[in-house]
Amino acid sequence: MAGGERLKTILNAYPLEQYKIGTKEDKDEEKDPSSRFVRMEAKYEQEGLRRTVEGVLIVHQHKHPHVLLLQVGAHQIFRLPGGRLRPGETEEDGLKRKLINKLAPPDFKEEEPLPWEVGEELATWWRPNFDSRQYPYLPVHVTRPKECRKLFLIHLPETCTFAVAKNHTLVAIPFYELYDNQDRYGPVISSIPILLAGKSVLPL
Amino acid sequence: MAGGERLKTILNAYPLEQYKIGTKEDKDEEKDPSSRFVRMEAKYEQEGLRRTVEGVLIVHQHKHPHVLLLQVGAHQIFRLPGGRLRPGETEEDGLKRKLINKLAPPDFKEEEPLPWEVGEELATWWRPNFDSRQYPYLPVHVTRPKECRKLFLIHLPETCTFAVAKNHTLVAIPFYELYDNQDRYGPVISSIPILLAGKSVLPL
Ligand SMILES: [Zn+2]
Ligand SMILES: [Zn+2]
Ligand SMILES: [Zn+2]
Ligand SMILES: [Zn+2]
Repeated sequence: MAGGERLKTILNAYPLEQYKIGTKEDKDEEKDPSSRFVRMEAKYEQEGLRRTVEGVLIVHQHKHPHVLLLQVGAHQIFRLPGGRLRPGETEEDGLKRKLINKLAPPDFKEEEPLPWEVGEELATWWRPNFDSRQYPYLPVHVTRPKECRKLFLIHLPETCTFAVAKNHTLVAIPFYELYDNQDRYGPVISSIPILLAGKSVLPL
Repeated sequence: MAGGERLKTILNAYPLEQYKIGTKEDKDEEKDPSSRFVRMEAKYEQEGLRRTVEGVLIVHQHKHPHVLLLQVGAHQIFRLPGGRLRPGETEEDGLKRKLINKLAPPDFKEEEPLPWEVGEELATWWRPNFDSRQYPYLPVHVTRPKECRKLFLIHLPETCTFAVAKNHTLVAIPFYELYDNQDRYGPVISSIPILLAGKSVLPL
């Protein structure tokens, strides 16, 4: 079986209560989501393909796996912690920078070792146009996609401290709420339970 | 990155035209799909949890990845090649037996090496009740699931010969037809493009 069962990733999930969640000052103003695709297009004209990296952080609540999401301000918008890579930046460097920016306590020093380990790539999603449609493959005959979104598994320690900007809330959403719920969470976040269906999520 | 990019599975996909597809006698009569859950329940009373293993075989047509599915008789039903494990049978043995049964030429000898390599597990799906609902995780407080379906990636050689029973047709369905198309293909088969979004599918 070419090591089939042996190759299966085991992901330890610890109880949500073992993590401290504090707040910190907002570094970036939250922009108006209704003009998001206009801004995306303007940026594309300058920099080309938008490369986005995001982290999937798993915890459990009474043994049911949950995904950590940032809920943004007054809008009912959920996001994975992550963001846009700078031109030339590697996926690993960019994702670490974004995780620090979104989740680390304000006194976290860039030189400190990250308490979160960037694990394997879970999926690549493509956005062909400046709109909300995204696909888990590069659609047929799309030669100039507008965004490439990569999701990485993040391995958490048993306990640590998160701090999120005051206009964000860190929420833990169970798999059964995300699954088959594109309307609320969009195609990418709602697919996370499927992406993890090949891993052993171990609630400890 | 804990070998993140290095761990990414590369899946070679060859053109559909490089495979020969023949027919063979039907070994099992196709049963009436409308009484499927009645039969499933009767079997469950005898043997308990139904363990199903299925193979995901990927080819390409002008560079777009396609999944090989068996289309069954007069019914517009699509299935992955695979089936139910016997009591005590390992996943690998059972999947090989089923692949031979569904796809190998009639003169294939059990002792011959299989031309198809059983690769990594892509997903486990659970069926809590004797109905069509299935989930990519064990739903909350389900202690006696009725079926556990495991999907494995199958690595194909550049060329080989398939033979399918006369009441079946082997069809190659593109990712863009499967994706987000639960109504036609069900929750499991329609999710295959998402399951492969973390792999490098390489059309050769
Ligand atoms: Zn923000
Ligand atoms: Zn519970
Ligand atoms: Zn059949
Ligand atoms: Zn084409």
